[in-house]
This record gives sequence, C-alpha cells and structure tokens, in this order.
Amino acid sequence: MTIQESGTARPAGRPRSEKAEKAIIEATLDLIGDGMGVSELSIEAIASKAGVGKTTIYRRWSSKEDLIVDALSTLKAPLPPLTGVSVRDDLISLLDAMRKEAGNRRNRCVMNIAMNEADRYPRLMERFMKRAVEPRKEALRSVIERGIATGELRADLGVDMCVAVLSGAMLWHTKWGPAGDLPSDLAERVVDAALEGLAP
Amino acid sequence: MTIQESGTARPAGRPRSEKAEKAIIEATLDLIGDGMGVSELSIEAIASKAGVGKTTIYRRWSSKEDLIVDALSTLKAPLPPLTGVSVRDDLISLLDAMRKEAGNRRNRCVMNIAMNEADRYPRLMERFMKRAVEPRKEALRSVIERGIATGELRADLGVDMCVAVLSGAMLWHTKWGPAGDLPSDLAERVVDAALEGLAP
Repeated sequence: MTIQESGTARPAGRPRSEKAEKAIIEATLDLIGDGMGVSELSIEAIASKAGVGKTTIYRRWSSKEDLIVDALSTLKAPLPPLTGVSVRDDLISLLDAMRKEAGNRRNRCVMNIAMNEADRYPRLMERFMKRAVEPRKEALRSVIERGIATGELRADLGVDMCVAVLSGAMLWHTKWGPAGDLPSDLAERVVDAALEGLAP
Repeated sequence: MTIQESGTARPAGRPRSEKAEKAIIEATLDLIGDGMGVSELSIEAIASKAGVGKTTIYRRWSSKEDLIVDALSTLKAPLPPLTGVSVRDDLISLLDAMRKEAGNRRNRCVMNIAMNEADRYPRLMERFMKRAVEPRKEALRSVIERGIATGELRADLGVDMCVAVLSGAMLWHTKWGPAGDLPSDLAERVVDAALEGLAP
C-alpha cells in the first residue's frame, strides 16, 4: 500500500495518519457493501463517511481506482505460513484462510459486488486479482503439484480438477451454505472429504 | 410463464406474439449482460432493443420485475430426467445440466450480474431462486440422500458437504476455469473425482 508520496515530510503525524487511512479504507468498503457501485462511489462520499477532508484522501491515493484496489486488497488475508510437511495440512491452512476472509458478512458482500463489477472495470479488477488473488491461487496450485509429485494426490486428475474440488467446496459454503459464521473446522472437513471422496 | 391476461381474446396472433415475447426476453437478457443493472433497466430500453412497442410488453408483464424474473428463469434449463438407477449417473445428469446452462457466455455473465443484485432486489431474487434454482438444488439433495440410503455415498459427510463438493467443483469451472466452452465430459469427470477422491 503506498502510503505517502516520497519527499513529503510528515513529522510526528503518523499515528493520526494511520488512523485516517484505516477510516478511509473502511468507509470505502462500507459504501461498496451498501451497494454503491464503483461508478457511483466518489471521493466526496468516502471523505464524508470517513470524517476526513478530501485532501487527506488525495494525499495518499492519486485516484479513486487506486483507493479501491487498496481497500479490496485488505479483504484478503496474507498467505498463511505453510509447513511443507504434509500436503493435507498445507491444503487445510490455505482453505482456512479462505474461510477466515469469508467469515465477515460485509467483506463477503463487498467481494461479491466487486467481482461483479469486473466486466465494467477490467483494469481495476486485474490489478486487484494480480495483487490479492493470484498469489493465493498460485500457492494452492503449487501445494497440489507437490502432492502429485509425492504421491499424496492422484496424478490422473490434473491440477485444475483438484483446485476445482477444493476451492469449489469452500466457495459453495461461502455462497450457498447455511447462514451465519462458517464452522471453524470447515477447511479440515472439506479437505478430508475431497481427499477421501464421497463414495465409501 | 404468464403469457396473457385471462379473458383477453387474441385471435390468430399467437405466432407473432410468441416471436415478440422471445425478442423481449432476449433484449432483457442482452441489456443485463451489457452491464445494465436492474435499476437502470427500463421498459423503454427493452422495447427499443426488442423492436416492439411498450404496450406489447405491458400486455404480457405487469411490471419490470415480473419480466426480469421470467427472463432469468429462461436461463435455467428444465430439470433433466433422472433414471433413478445409479446415483453416479443421476449426479452426472444433474451436473451436466449446470454445464449446459453455463456454456453460453452471455448467460453466464447475466447470471453473475443478476446474483450480484440479490442484495438490492431481494424480492425479485427470491422469486427467481424459488422458481428456477430451488427445484434444481432439491433434486441434487434428493439424489444424494438416496445415495446415502443405498450406501453408494458415505453417510458420515452429510448432505451439505456432498452438495458443496459436487456443485462447488462445477461452480469453480464456470467462474475460474480456463476460458472457452466447458468440456463436454466435465460433469462426468467432476462426479468421478468427487466420488473417488483426490487421494490415491
């Protein structure tokens, strides 16, 4: 996240500055979550909701798009540490990060709305995907490739099918599962169901 | 689909009338697919795109919402016939219906956009879900319940988890899979991967 333009001295203001930044990010996400589309979203509305002046926003972000990419990226948790020992354990860690992100109702709603704007704002979404989504997908693919190499996963299915079954089952729960928080053991149950299969 | 108000005599006009209806439905879907939200969508715009007069639309649908529910419902194929013999075969039939629906790029795009409007138009989406989505979900659940009863599926996973793995893997392919048509054997491959599991 680019926080300040290089060369702008800002002595002793950091704590307040960070608080403002957080308020601006939260205001942006709240407004998107309330159903405000990217086109309707304005720096004015964000400033007003965050309780800051417009210049405070422009000091940090040169455009609305930059701010939205930053705001959306905060919804994605950082990649969890992977032990690299058992493929099952690493898959659970990765899927559990998906569960945690989707656990917050507003965040889930914002992410749905944002993904839906992908067709209208391809450049914005591409930047978001590249920064926040692709690294996660890549991590999952590489754990699966490792599993195929070690024989922990079947080699005949292909990586895409493994990703589809694992991520898809998580995706289904966030989109269509029973309302309320996702159960804390969901990732483990999904991974075990996927690895062992639905047939006895 | 409610086509005409009861009591309105319409002699010999049926073929032209059906053609107009199809044009109106297609125009509605095209406009949604072009990114027009439910609020922006107007009877005027639909009439103009369909090449019909507004009264032709109002003769069939009493509101924009009714028309949208009908239009979205045409995107869902009717339930496929199920043989009731092997659970594997019936699961493939149900998942293959999902593949066929999602095969059309515009339809996929429209469905994504529509689902995204669910928060803004809960009543509209509820009607659509009830008419076009719930029967499909119920059919899948009942095949899974049958499979658990006959021992073709594990009893310890629960119905939701089986639905999540099967539907989720299809959902993933329609949303994140490689661009282009979904492969014709996708449903069969998903069902076999899900039943047998990713582990050797």
